[in-house]
Amino acid sequence: MTHSPGYGTPDANDTPGTRDAGGIPQYYLGVDGGGTKTLAIVVDAQGQERGRGLAGGANYNAVGLDQAIQHIHAAVEQAAHAAGCRLPLHKAWLGLAGVDRPYDYEALLPLLRSLAERVHMTNDADLVLSALEETVGVVLIAGTGSIALGRDARGTSRRAGGWGHVIGDEGSGYEMGRLGLQAAVRAVDGRGPRTTLLQVFMERWRLDNANDIVGYVYADEDKAKIARLATDVLTAARAGDEVAETIVRHAADELALAVSAVSNALDFPQRIPLALGGGLLLHNPDFRAQVLHLIRQQQPIGEVVLVEEPALSAARAIIR
Amino acid sequence: MTHSPGYGTPDANDTPGTRDAGGIPQYYLGVDGGGTKTLAIVVDAQGQERGRGLAGGANYNAVGLDQAIQHIHAAVEQAAHAAGCRLPLHKAWLGLAGVDRPYDYEALLPLLRSLAERVHMTNDADLVLSALEETVGVVLIAGTGSIALGRDARGTSRRAGGWGHVIGDEGSGYEMGRLGLQAAVRAVDGRGPRTTLLQVFMERWRLDNANDIVGYVYADEDKAKIARLATDVLTAARAGDEVAETIVRHAADELALAVSAVSNALDFPQRIPLALGGGLLLHNPDFRAQVLHLIRQQQPIGEVVLVEEPALSAARAIIR
Repeated sequence: MTHSPGYGTPDANDTPGTRDAGGIPQYYLGVDGGGTKTLAIVVDAQGQERGRGLAGGANYNAVGLDQAIQHIHAAVEQAAHAAGCRLPLHKAWLGLAGVDRPYDYEALLPLLRSLAERVHMTNDADLVLSALEETVGVVLIAGTGSIALGRDARGTSRRAGGWGHVIGDEGSGYEMGRLGLQAAVRAVDGRGPRTTLLQVFMERWRLDNANDIVGYVYADEDKAKIARLATDVLTAARAGDEVAETIVRHAADELALAVSAVSNALDFPQRIPLALGGGLLLHNPDFRAQVLHLIRQQQPIGEVVLVEEPALSAARAIIR
Repeated sequence: MTHSPGYGTPDANDTPGTRDAGGIPQYYLGVDGGGTKTLAIVVDAQGQERGRGLAGGANYNAVGLDQAIQHIHAAVEQAAHAAGCRLPLHKAWLGLAGVDRPYDYEALLPLLRSLAERVHMTNDADLVLSALEETVGVVLIAGTGSIALGRDARGTSRRAGGWGHVIGDEGSGYEMGRLGLQAAVRAVDGRGPRTTLLQVFMERWRLDNANDIVGYVYADEDKAKIARLATDVLTAARAGDEVAETIVRHAADELALAVSAVSNALDFPQRIPLALGGGLLLHNPDFRAQVLHLIRQQQPIGEVVLVEEPALSAARAIIR
């Protein structure tokens, strides 16, 4: 998946900020607009955080254009207020879920130009690239969903995964939880081996009867609820449950495969800089080590950056 | 999964109909209440169809209790009107999606007793058992969803599968379509082998760009839309596409596994009567043959009945 030219690099046609000469402080904005929440962070010219704001989801395909724009403005205004500054800020990097094709930019950009003198917009996953020097390298994100993406020194971009929970999300928390549930009910039916996961999930969800799993799963469309079970799958795997081990190994294989699909399609000279994001990778050191081990078996990896707050990385990246 | 005692057999405590003596014609009702539509069929004492009626979905977990009851009554009244008879009918077998636990029966039965002098209620999947003599044997259903269930001569019931599209539905049309789509986008990413499925699905959905698959998949929660792609996967497999062949083989394996999980848990003397239902099995003879071949490798199968209209089979079964 190659990005539309012109959207890939934040710094191509930047000119020095006009307010700089008068000694007025310059503020930089990073916005991480995900499916369920939008985080805006304002930093000063030294990269120090000065304010942050939080609002609802920014994926306009999910919440509608008006709502998405409203959430982004609310988060940014809150962050600017906390920083004691006014809009427009000097420069902004907006990373928004659902932004992929040229018409996404055409729909959103005009409604967000007022936030900063220079607005750079990308998909929210691309935001994690901001943690890498020159935004060159490979990003691997595994939280509720999963995606790998990369950008080489020529500015060519590439993605693997990120096709959502129905036909993608391999190696994500959602898939790990879903496969855990599937294995549990297969054990109930006698279609699969026994696993401790059945009891673990029933306790987690406070269910008395295995058949109640159906009601709980389909009560809503809450993907995060299923993704949270990934922690239980990882724990069961560490405790030696073979079914859980298989699921965890599958996830690690899939994430490493996504990274190699991206890096094979791009032109990297030697060791590839790697940035990791998403709760599944950030908060599970054993699993992260397992994934990194598999990635290193396939290609030489340079620095590995853990990106806890892509909005902060992005706000700092655009100072340069 | 063992059924609550008392609901498994339609004929345990039946007494002869009271109207029979006066020479008034006896009418029998079968209702197939699925997730999206309810079909009611009225037959006479000779098993001849006399009328049918169609209404919306009858799964009260999905459409709500009032709506489900309304749809069932509407379908039955339409069928009775076409048959030229009045409610209550003599006997009825209502097979309703979402009916599984004792409280499901408690919620629905009082609101449906007025349909017939004797009302037998089961899950809609159990309805297919009506096509087997004495309702003894194994049922395998693969349409949009999938499930296997069985009942032995002692009246013990057992199920495998039927856990829905998120954590179950192995071997169903939905899973076949979903895995086809997943394979197609993995090919796009360079994470999986090339497959003709990508082009086939894009033509089927009239998409110009592979990335538009995401928008199409997530535009709604239409599982039937994805299940319809199963036909394309079967066609591609017959044409020699290895990716499609793998998906089809997986589906056949899963369906055979569900049957053996059910039959292993029940007590069948020799050859097991088998009833097949659902569009994927009924309308694809090659695939059906592949599944039957796998089942026969594991256990001796007796008569194989294709059940096109479970409501009709059920209406006829309760005459006995």
